[in-house]
Amino acid sequence: MKKIFVVGAGLSSSSLIDYLMENSTNYEWEVLIGDLDLELANQKLKNHPNGKAVYFDVFSEEIRNSIVSETDIVISLLPADLHYLMLETCLRYSKNMITASYLPDELWKKNQEFIDKGMTVMYECGLDPGIDHMSAMKILDKIRGEGGNILSFKSSTGGLVATDNNPWNYKFTWNPRNVVLAGKAGAQYKQNGKLKYVPYHRLFERAEPIKIEEDDNFETYPNRDSLKYLSVYGLDHIETMYRGTIRRSGFSNLWNQLIKMGLTEDGFVLENSKNITYRELSESLLPEGKSSDIKGKVASYLNIGIDSIEMNKLEWLELFEDKKIPIEGATPAIALQKLLEEKWKLNPDDKDMIVMQHEFVFETIQKETSKITSSLVLTGTDKSHTAMAMTVGLPLGIAAKLILTGQINKKGIVIPIHSEIYEPILKELQKFNIAFKESEQKIKKGNQSPLL
Amino acid sequence: MKKIFVVGAGLSSSSLIDYLMENSTNYEWEVLIGDLDLELANQKLKNHPNGKAVYFDVFSEEIRNSIVSETDIVISLLPADLHYLMLETCLRYSKNMITASYLPDELWKKNQEFIDKGMTVMYECGLDPGIDHMSAMKILDKIRGEGGNILSFKSSTGGLVATDNNPWNYKFTWNPRNVVLAGKAGAQYKQNGKLKYVPYHRLFERAEPIKIEEDDNFETYPNRDSLKYLSVYGLDHIETMYRGTIRRSGFSNLWNQLIKMGLTEDGFVLENSKNITYRELSESLLPEGKSSDIKGKVASYLNIGIDSIEMNKLEWLELFEDKKIPIEGATPAIALQKLLEEKWKLNPDDKDMIVMQHEFVFETIQKETSKITSSLVLTGTDKSHTAMAMTVGLPLGIAAKLILTGQINKKGIVIPIHSEIYEPILKELQKFNIAFKESEQKIKKGNQSPLL
Repeated sequence: MKKIFVVGAGLSSSSLIDYLMENSTNYEWEVLIGDLDLELANQKLKNHPNGKAVYFDVFSEEIRNSIVSETDIVISLLPADLHYLMLETCLRYSKNMITASYLPDELWKKNQEFIDKGMTVMYECGLDPGIDHMSAMKILDKIRGEGGNILSFKSSTGGLVATDNNPWNYKFTWNPRNVVLAGKAGAQYKQNGKLKYVPYHRLFERAEPIKIEEDDNFETYPNRDSLKYLSVYGLDHIETMYRGTIRRSGFSNLWNQLIKMGLTEDGFVLENSKNITYRELSESLLPEGKSSDIKGKVASYLNIGIDSIEMNKLEWLELFEDKKIPIEGATPAIALQKLLEEKWKLNPDDKDMIVMQHEFVFETIQKETSKITSSLVLTGTDKSHTAMAMTVGLPLGIAAKLILTGQINKKGIVIPIHSEIYEPILKELQKFNIAFKESEQKIKKGNQSPLL
Repeated sequence: MKKIFVVGAGLSSSSLIDYLMENSTNYEWEVLIGDLDLELANQKLKNHPNGKAVYFDVFSEEIRNSIVSETDIVISLLPADLHYLMLETCLRYSKNMITASYLPDELWKKNQEFIDKGMTVMYECGLDPGIDHMSAMKILDKIRGEGGNILSFKSSTGGLVATDNNPWNYKFTWNPRNVVLAGKAGAQYKQNGKLKYVPYHRLFERAEPIKIEEDDNFETYPNRDSLKYLSVYGLDHIETMYRGTIRRSGFSNLWNQLIKMGLTEDGFVLENSKNITYRELSESLLPEGKSSDIKGKVASYLNIGIDSIEMNKLEWLELFEDKKIPIEGATPAIALQKLLEEKWKLNPDDKDMIVMQHEFVFETIQKETSKITSSLVLTGTDKSHTAMAMTVGLPLGIAAKLILTGQINKKGIVIPIHSEIYEPILKELQKFNIAFKESEQKIKKGNQSPLL
């Protein structure tokens, strides 16, 4: 019997755990679910005979050692900055590990060690990064296999609410802190042969409209460092390389107002935060002046109309109300997150939605210019089997199966850009209706839209 | 014979070293000057018989140990983030240490250890922080000693060029990297009873005019965290607590344009920076568009007129010219610094200038409201005895003397806010013409200007 250890029974674990349990009898797996909250881990297991919930504190080396040493593969759903603790323990006992997080560049220093120990260490195997790599590489490899020359690659992804019914057209369907701090490191991409660098405080101005399966109520803004995927995807020579994040139209401009206010700042703690109100927080970010009209002062500071749509949507958040910040030691970003968690809460009947779209422009072997658009739109099933939980969890589960059955036997650091990995994963994802729609059209060269 | 070890023979060391050498015969000191550049250290000593230049590499533990163990007091002129190496060695051999840098909060954890070892560890003993604390505390203590109740305290300092003759009215008279990265952590202050938090990307908009000794061509913007000095100065109850940085009028608005462009970003490296020009760097920060008119694009991105004064001054920097960035692996901030080092270079006949001004508003024991203004304007003597070198170096030298002669015998972490420290230092500084002008006027309560 092979043992799989899933670390973390939180939001994105349901579909992964269900998948592993369903396959456990056939493949003779024992599945351990570790969490600080033992009851939560037990709930997710639904009494499956091949499953076992364990109390797991990642900061206890003793607990890490005792469980990892008995395991064949670890699937870490921990926050990105804690994977290193699991990886350290996996290295000690030569165990495989998989996560959906971005691969930190500095991990490459350890690669030879991983290889020597026969470990597979797979990163970026969730949705974005994850399914985006797999679905993009499949088409890139196909184009290149037919002698095509890729000119431009753009790829955008978003986790949204399908039943969108609030003024921001956005709710939290995944980690709220990641949403509030999104883009902090700025973004880098390549467009029409030119490298582009965008600092955080101007990132959300860079949003552009994008149409997905006939719905043009979307926009995309640059997501982190796209340039590093130039070499990863083998596209060093191309003119345009852009990875983006999708939101409903207008969101980026609204979010930018919060950035301009200073409400996403996370580098300092507000004095006495539990005794101040959101109105006072907003005041503390504005220059001092004679006027006591906070809305007027905000509108003027943001250079927007006092009765503008933007101001109405900011007011809807109750940022200017005498409403207490409920936590001590909050940074502006933490205080904002707390407010948004209330305002952007999913209703029991809300469903989430994943949208992803790639656009490839290439020259065929016959010297024609062609554009392939490939898109995924997926709506969640229920509150625990959200589209996010499915698209993050299932690739991890399938990758674990492929490693345990020897179908993936690449050692060292791996991200899912190789056909022996993406082919079987994408194929199995189709059974869960996670499938891309593809269309191709010939275009006149130089006729592609400037950004998307 | 007592031994003094000065670490660093750079820009701000000349006045300090001269002071120590002049006093060395009288007090029987041997003064060691350590630097990576032995010749530079020797130049500064001018063959004084009590001085000795030594090769010093702060990263060599062996070298640190061998010198510090033989020393009575270390004066560290290293960059702020390297003091910890000297302090670690001072702790090993129970030696005193003095620096002009800001005291890191986390150092308090070590305070009991310093006390137990009988060490004096003095921080913030230069100009700003340093002379600002001393001159402010002297007046604060006097007002409080006479039963006055302080309502407002504002203090601003700037290192400028006296002979200002370029369009920015600014040249580098101290560490260029510190100038380029100034304000990165934002600022915090208290005004009219309200706490104010300002993120970096809006900091330079917060500048206000300030008049110093009849010259009203100055402005001040908030400097770091003023709030932490509320308790340090014993002013927890006051309505306004503001520390600022002084520049010539208009500078902050210009600098803010560079921030808005993204030219002060320091978190990522430009690809292939040695093969691109400043024009290409500027282009890479702008959104892609059809226009090839870079000045038009910049003006539009910054929302300023294409023929505005701001644009003319940005153009004067040659930011939009086909001029190569001379270094590889540059961040935007490093590339900008390199350009400014050329544009803002001091001419041989340029003199620097220090300006500092405190404003105290208080209620006297007779319930009258009064305002004291205290200001310092100091012009440098020559290229090595700049006003900056004098005002940073002399307080360090005097403090060293006071510690070695037992006049300062406070143990543990000390900043110069106590009368037994500031009185003798301020008194001796007067001999070097570093003296404050003071004026007092009765004011009607509520009649003070909003910020300064």
